[in-house]
Amino acid sequence: MSKFWSKIVHDLQPYVPGEQPKQAELVKLNTNENPYGPSPKVLKALQFELGDKLRLYPDPDSSALKKSLADYYQLDTKQIFVGNGSDEVLAHIFHGLFKHEQAILFPEHTYSFYPVYCGLYQIDYKKIPLTASFDIDVAAFEQPNGGIIFPNPNAPTGVLLSLKQIEQLLQVNTESVVVIDEAYIDFGGESAVSLINQYPNLLVTQTFSKSRSLAGLRIGYAMGHADLIEALIRVKDSFNSYPIDSLALAAGVAAIDDEDYFQQTSQKVIEQREYVTSSLEELGFDVLPSAANFVFVRHPDNDAAEISAGLRENKVIVRHFTKPGIEQFLRISIGTKEENQQLLAALDTLI
Amino acid sequence: MSKFWSKIVHDLQPYVPGEQPKQAELVKLNTNENPYGPSPKVLKALQFELGDKLRLYPDPDSSALKKSLADYYQLDTKQIFVGNGSDEVLAHIFHGLFKHEQAILFPEHTYSFYPVYCGLYQIDYKKIPLTASFDIDVAAFEQPNGGIIFPNPNAPTGVLLSLKQIEQLLQVNTESVVVIDEAYIDFGGESAVSLINQYPNLLVTQTFSKSRSLAGLRIGYAMGHADLIEALIRVKDSFNSYPIDSLALAAGVAAIDDEDYFQQTSQKVIEQREYVTSSLEELGFDVLPSAANFVFVRHPDNDAAEISAGLRENKVIVRHFTKPGIEQFLRISIGTKEENQQLLAALDTLI
Repeated sequence: MSKFWSKIVHDLQPYVPGEQPKQAELVKLNTNENPYGPSPKVLKALQFELGDKLRLYPDPDSSALKKSLADYYQLDTKQIFVGNGSDEVLAHIFHGLFKHEQAILFPEHTYSFYPVYCGLYQIDYKKIPLTASFDIDVAAFEQPNGGIIFPNPNAPTGVLLSLKQIEQLLQVNTESVVVIDEAYIDFGGESAVSLINQYPNLLVTQTFSKSRSLAGLRIGYAMGHADLIEALIRVKDSFNSYPIDSLALAAGVAAIDDEDYFQQTSQKVIEQREYVTSSLEELGFDVLPSAANFVFVRHPDNDAAEISAGLRENKVIVRHFTKPGIEQFLRISIGTKEENQQLLAALDTLI
Repeated sequence: MSKFWSKIVHDLQPYVPGEQPKQAELVKLNTNENPYGPSPKVLKALQFELGDKLRLYPDPDSSALKKSLADYYQLDTKQIFVGNGSDEVLAHIFHGLFKHEQAILFPEHTYSFYPVYCGLYQIDYKKIPLTASFDIDVAAFEQPNGGIIFPNPNAPTGVLLSLKQIEQLLQVNTESVVVIDEAYIDFGGESAVSLINQYPNLLVTQTFSKSRSLAGLRIGYAMGHADLIEALIRVKDSFNSYPIDSLALAAGVAAIDDEDYFQQTSQKVIEQREYVTSSLEELGFDVLPSAANFVFVRHPDNDAAEISAGLRENKVIVRHFTKPGIEQFLRISIGTKEENQQLLAALDTLI
């Protein structure tokens, strides 16, 4: 606390990211990274960029990356915004599209950065409870609001909404922006990108940190009507002219280019998720149906904090949110087959 | 314009960065990049990072880079903040330390991003005119304020204030934060870092984009009292957990490590600045005394816009701000000896 702080700083409740441990020998299943490295073509593209030209500023508009994404999703480049990770993209969305008189709406249990952005930009919000089965209650979002946001599949539950459910919401909610945060969509969900040209208030965000195996390089993006994208560009150009560095830019283009690698690694993650799910169920866990690269699980006879601590002793780290309502759940990222086997072996000794 | 935009978006006047042309054959003297590439040790460090581990999130605290900087400047790591380029660092400073009841103060002719941040965060500001010789008028900043910021050396003038003048300001201005934006300090100025332990309201910002030849990788930092740094960390952790990617992090550490390369390249830029200055004076230009890697010049008999256009035809690009009061000046970055010779040869045909 200091007299020099802006008033807003005093009340901020910053987001706490999952641990990035220094020890390499841990089985790291706590931050939903892809267990497979980036495409070899990405590494080759990065290699090509290492040189004197790093003295130059990157393209402030990230045009090449926007073009790649536009071609990939069959959109116009004016419908694409890119940022330094989807967290930055989301921050600009909250600032540029969600700061209105009315409160915005998001699920009670969801990505815990949303209320943090509201604190940063002083936006009112209202949490909509999940259903008893931990689904997003789409009908409950049909009320006056300054904006709607939820991940699909939801985090940390992994539970997917169908495109039909999302479209039903868009049909009734036409006066505020609806953001579908698709960080995990590539692991089995159907993207709402196909609805963008029909609904001018729909914004879809995605990231290179999960299915593209590039968490280390920080690339996120938003897709929607050019008017929504323009708001984000105006905020970005009033914040940082060059959010995407030259290496991230090259890596992003190369990642989109290697569709085979993307399909193969995503498929492997999905297969491992099914294996982890059935194995956990055999151990007595309740496993929410996941369309993501993680599972959200609880055990009827074992305390989540104790399981988490026990796993840590066995050099496996998972994420435990101590939030009321989900405090008995653990979020476990899907690893490689070997990592998942280590997880399951450790759990076998613990419960 | 769209009904979905937050009110703030309508009034934003975004910053316009200098052009990053696609054609490689241009002599690019428009955005103050270093004419020399990054240290070979930086490229080696980057090489080492290219691999599977890019699938992992970077260290959210950028601890290794903070430690490098702390050691280099003989500060504690708690006195260091790092961000995705100094523009991001400045944005967080405006949001976290400058948003008060009273207007902040900055020079009339200075880095044109400052009023843009004020627009983004709705901060009142007052511009303090430069003296007739285009110096920052330090005495004129002695008035009630919500914060003070100026670059030293100033941009786009290149004119340096002495450390003594800065300390005089700090002695009388104790109730608000004073930010010295030292993007260009390594080209001949004396840093205010040495004053940090005496003045708890002093914040010094620097960047890897100029003297460290890493504009392409986006690394900026702030140094000051731990309380000021904490405000920035709180804002950052409410905005983006991982602003510095894994490659930028490794490059930053390696750049600080290679002091010899840094000294050699900075010295070459300074030598070339002296050469360019005397050559321009021989061509009849008024050249403001510069302590930066650029010069700010006008010609008594030739229109700045015409010179700029003529240079462009000769494949040399410089920056022309059309702002009243400085509209007859050009800002010319210092290039390699060969680039500077091309500039001077082109000017020789134009005036």
